[in-house]
Amino acid sequence: MMRGDHTSQKLAFSFILLLIIVLASSSQSALASKKLPLNEKSPCKRFVVYYHDTLFNGTDAANATSATVANKTRLGDFNFGMLVVFDDPMTKDNHLLSPPVGRAQGFFFYDKKNEYNAWFAFTLVFNSSEYKGTLNIMGADLMPQKTRDLSVVGGTGDFFMARGIVTIETDTLQGDFYFRLKMDIKLYECY
Amino acid sequence: MMRGDHTSQKLAFSFILLLIIVLASSSQSALASKKLPLNEKSPCKRFVVYYHDTLFNGTDAANATSATVANKTRLGDFNFGMLVVFDDPMTKDNHLLSPPVGRAQGFFFYDKKNEYNAWFAFTLVFNSSEYKGTLNIMGADLMPQKTRDLSVVGGTGDFFMARGIVTIETDTLQGDFYFRLKMDIKLYECY
Amino acid sequence: MMRGDHTSQKLAFSFILLLIIVLASSSQSALASKKLPLNEKSPCKRFVVYYHDTLFNGTDAANATSATVANKTRLGDFNFGMLVVFDDPMTKDNHLLSPPVGRAQGFFFYDKKNEYNAWFAFTLVFNSSEYKGTLNIMGADLMPQKTRDLSVVGGTGDFFMARGIVTIETDTLQGDFYFRLKMDIKLYECY
Repeated sequence: MMRGDHTSQKLAFSFILLLIIVLASSSQSALASKKLPLNEKSPCKRFVVYYHDTLFNGTDAANATSATVANKTRLGDFNFGMLVVFDDPMTKDNHLLSPPVGRAQGFFFYDKKNEYNAWFAFTLVFNSSEYKGTLNIMGADLMPQKTRDLSVVGGTGDFFMARGIVTIETDTLQGDFYFRLKMDIKLYECY
Repeated sequence: MMRGDHTSQKLAFSFILLLIIVLASSSQSALASKKLPLNEKSPCKRFVVYYHDTLFNGTDAANATSATVANKTRLGDFNFGMLVVFDDPMTKDNHLLSPPVGRAQGFFFYDKKNEYNAWFAFTLVFNSSEYKGTLNIMGADLMPQKTRDLSVVGGTGDFFMARGIVTIETDTLQGDFYFRLKMDIKLYECY
Repeated sequence: MMRGDHTSQKLAFSFILLLIIVLASSSQSALASKKLPLNEKSPCKRFVVYYHDTLFNGTDAANATSATVANKTRLGDFNFGMLVVFDDPMTKDNHLLSPPVGRAQGFFFYDKKNEYNAWFAFTLVFNSSEYKGTLNIMGADLMPQKTRDLSVVGGTGDFFMARGIVTIETDTLQGDFYFRLKMDIKLYECY
């Protein structure tokens, strides 16, 4: 009888200790700031779309999907300040004429005087059988780098409250009036 | 004595099992990406404000609260590229002259060549007895839809670190120079 | 024997009760919206940078790092609608000529007709030995206040998925063409 008591008490203390550890660790993460080991290699959702920007040249309104709304300034030789609004199709492969899976609506501007560099803010609007909803994105397009990361700062519909990273890469650049980006969309907060 | 030992050991094993489950489930959510069942129907804070935009027509500086800073382009017939900066009053009901509970400061532009459609980024600035602080918002205003969801991507003051959704609905549209949106603000991350 | 049984059972019930509390509290936070006691005073990362904006006056392209891309409107006397794109150096102390620790790339515009007030969206681009990566920021610059809070809405690289607050303060304002902000960057979500 004494031994049974003793054993159960020893076990009891171990449990209490464990519980305190569990409680302490969870309350710590709740009370202090969040410092979580999110794994950059394990997004909860990932897919690729291609973004096609065809800039209005003044005469091709039928094909163009973007237009310059503020002209470049005289600061440097790389279009500093030129601001473009777009409503660009997104496709699953890199063919401009493939059926669009959604639209990218937003703007970018050039912002460096000694090389090409841009800044983007836009919404990916999905209205396909696969996805309905939007992803809101912003960030620097550091054009000299092969790949650049922008932030997915929110989402709606099927992407309710999403956050993540979009890695963009220039897929082609044809003169002043057409370029294509590969967008690798990685969400790390899915609900 | 043997029975007491046996019973307490059986209980001990159950507890250990339970603890392992608890620990496993919490470490999983910490180590992998977050995939949480946030409930779209249960925001932690929700309220409605009305947004009043009175566009400067060149002569009514006393009443106007927004102005066109980049003109529409010739791409399509729906103001593509027209960019408007605003500092618009927000009220609790839909009367323009009700006491404002805050200001909406930011910009929008039209971005579609074959129908009206817009894109917004702005800050709701509250400085009332009820709320002090800001909410930062961006997203596509898909005007053909009755209601449209934008993302609340951050907040300050009473809305420290908030995230959520703003559902907007056109409450009235009076010619080119006044429109009103109902904004249903739903926060899902409150601190 | 009976006493051993009794004691271990009493302990067992306490453990089960505790476990239920632990499980209940964690499942609650997962199922409903997040309502967490994040501590505004305990960021997981904090540092200060100074932001230097030198506006292009039309002739000093060598020194200027920003340019006006949309002119002020005639709404009020405080530059309403004037939109500036920048690629501004950030330094650790408040000397313009200190070695930059990164660039702030983005835009701001003035948005009030009866006093100076602005709105910002930009990316801090770090490429130093200390940090590589970006922070994406937006919010209202309520200039009449001594300090103003903007939202850090996302990050990449060393700042992967970060969120937080940037408290800005005007450090100096020299005429129309140079101003400096102290930026106190406080992250509350670090991964």
